[in-house]
Amino acid sequence: MKFSCEKALLQSAIAVTARAVSPKSSIPALEGILLEAGTDLRLTGYNLETGIRTVVPAQIDQEGSLVLSARLFGEIIRKLPDDIVSFQADGYMVNITCGMSQFNILATDPEDFPELPTVEDKNGFTIPRGKLGSMIRQTIFAVSDNESRPIHTGSLFEIDDTGLTVVSVDGYRLALRHEPITERDGALSFSFVVPGSALSEVEKICGDGEEEATVTQGERHVMFRVGDTMLVSRRLEGEFLAYRQAIPRNNGIKVEGDTRALLTSIDRVSLIISDKLKSPLRCVFDDNVLKITTKTGIGDASDQCPISGDGGGLEIGFNNRYLMDALKAAPADRVRLELSSGVAPCVILPAEGEENFLYMVLPVRLKAGE
Amino acid sequence: MKFSCEKALLQSAIAVTARAVSPKSSIPALEGILLEAGTDLRLTGYNLETGIRTVVPAQIDQEGSLVLSARLFGEIIRKLPDDIVSFQADGYMVNITCGMSQFNILATDPEDFPELPTVEDKNGFTIPRGKLGSMIRQTIFAVSDNESRPIHTGSLFEIDDTGLTVVSVDGYRLALRHEPITERDGALSFSFVVPGSALSEVEKICGDGEEEATVTQGERHVMFRVGDTMLVSRRLEGEFLAYRQAIPRNNGIKVEGDTRALLTSIDRVSLIISDKLKSPLRCVFDDNVLKITTKTGIGDASDQCPISGDGGGLEIGFNNRYLMDALKAAPADRVRLELSSGVAPCVILPAEGEENFLYMVLPVRLKAGE
Repeated sequence: MKFSCEKALLQSAIAVTARAVSPKSSIPALEGILLEAGTDLRLTGYNLETGIRTVVPAQIDQEGSLVLSARLFGEIIRKLPDDIVSFQADGYMVNITCGMSQFNILATDPEDFPELPTVEDKNGFTIPRGKLGSMIRQTIFAVSDNESRPIHTGSLFEIDDTGLTVVSVDGYRLALRHEPITERDGALSFSFVVPGSALSEVEKICGDGEEEATVTQGERHVMFRVGDTMLVSRRLEGEFLAYRQAIPRNNGIKVEGDTRALLTSIDRVSLIISDKLKSPLRCVFDDNVLKITTKTGIGDASDQCPISGDGGGLEIGFNNRYLMDALKAAPADRVRLELSSGVAPCVILPAEGEENFLYMVLPVRLKAGE
Repeated sequence: MKFSCEKALLQSAIAVTARAVSPKSSIPALEGILLEAGTDLRLTGYNLETGIRTVVPAQIDQEGSLVLSARLFGEIIRKLPDDIVSFQADGYMVNITCGMSQFNILATDPEDFPELPTVEDKNGFTIPRGKLGSMIRQTIFAVSDNESRPIHTGSLFEIDDTGLTVVSVDGYRLALRHEPITERDGALSFSFVVPGSALSEVEKICGDGEEEATVTQGERHVMFRVGDTMLVSRRLEGEFLAYRQAIPRNNGIKVEGDTRALLTSIDRVSLIISDKLKSPLRCVFDDNVLKITTKTGIGDASDQCPISGDGGGLEIGFNNRYLMDALKAAPADRVRLELSSGVAPCVILPAEGEENFLYMVLPVRLKAGE
């Protein structure tokens, strides 16, 4: 195995594939990146849950494959001068040369590296990479970390003629984003659930930009393709919450507020709440003002945030984290809050324009004196 | 106790004094900041080792003093809107109001707060604050963390008619910075040792700038005054290394190199060295080139760095960290390395101009095959 390539290109390919490498594994090959020099140079990381493969432009002088420790390989390449890196393997001993710098390190047998699942082309769609990334980013926080309902440790991807809907839920809140897609392939409508851990890597690979990303649904896996990089993840099996029925849409109270101002007020009052001293926020929706108070062993705090509309004095309790997560994610300067009573969920929507996001937060029972 | 002041000024005063507050203490008052409203508003943090006091412009309506948790007080003020903060204490209950935000928190008895030591004016000097800060920053890394020689857990401040010399040593290296001072008071020459922990706070308080900082040596303490802020630290007692005799100055080999290029080469080769797999750098000073190699269980690495001068093939081993710390700190683009043999220290000096810094690194014995 012998090849040479540009340091900067190799460095970014390692950074991408290393995301799917186990930091610590009983199988040493899983801590490594698979290098395959064939017609081109291919790098693969695979932790048995998520696999990432990318291609690097290289001059291949001799074909071959081997596995290198992702950490060490990444650090060596990162610290080399900005020049052409030459790579030559003699058995398992690998020589890396660049400028006046030279490294000799030991590789692992590529036979020990697990094979990446293949995803047969069944149903699929394309969407600009930046849009896919933001849809994931703005819903992933509501993915459950409770393994007792495994299906909810992922996000639902629902594709139909209106576009793509991404939904995350845990027992206390729901996050939903909707956008039109560029193209659809296969069935008229289909859906699948992708583990949150894989999605957080997809989000990073997406980055910004208008370039089309391709998503392909296989029997048991799903594949995301962005530029020269592809990510394969297993799908989660099970019945996802029938979320449409769970969202109340006939809410009598509708008020609007500045997203950042609401967030700042809640954040401020939350100072009095800690992991040890928990307490819900007591929110009172009055005429053109939202009053927020809370009280713990540390002391008490109150704040007021201007809103448009009259909440009629509705009093409702919330977990401060859940409200903040939703407001931080909401891609709008102004939001509409819909409520019906002190024991029904609060729905957060864009104040104007298309309804391309929806967050729902369940209330918390308020005790006297809180 | 009742006062009001600008949020931004109070926030930065808390940030400064909080540096001297114990993060965790069995005496609750030591986790707090002492607020004293008299003719002005004074904030004090004191962890019994280092004390920091600063003054905030405020309108005092009623005098008084109390202690507030540094963490909570700091967070509350930081998150308040940019406005006038009003502060009113009713017994130990403190009301903080700013705009539409209001907090009620509990204070601690100021009687429990330890008294800051007073530093009687004995000897002293002034020096621009930015210069004092950089002198500390460029020597503090060589302060020993070995408590068996307590005197070397601090830096020596030596003042004479040539200016200020700051020296740090552990058993393996030495760092020295020298600069002229603006003014000297008291004895013609004097010296004292300041704990490294206090100096790292002094360095942060100094920041940049030409404003004069005042340093006053007391019997058992030393005081640094920068603007409205003063820091008091105990002095370390004991006999500091007679460093002048320890530095070899008749070195036969003198070569020069680019500081950053040397650092990059060493950093690169150091990739092969880890906490678990230690090995010295094997440095060979040849004609206009420094060859650096090392070898561990991970593999081997080599690099070459251009130098000016002929090292005559001198081979010497170094701890990579110690060389890198010195080169990172050296305030010069080019350095001169002085050596005499493979078992004598390496001295690092500015390649040109005034000799305002000197680093010394002891060699490490090289074993065959390393």
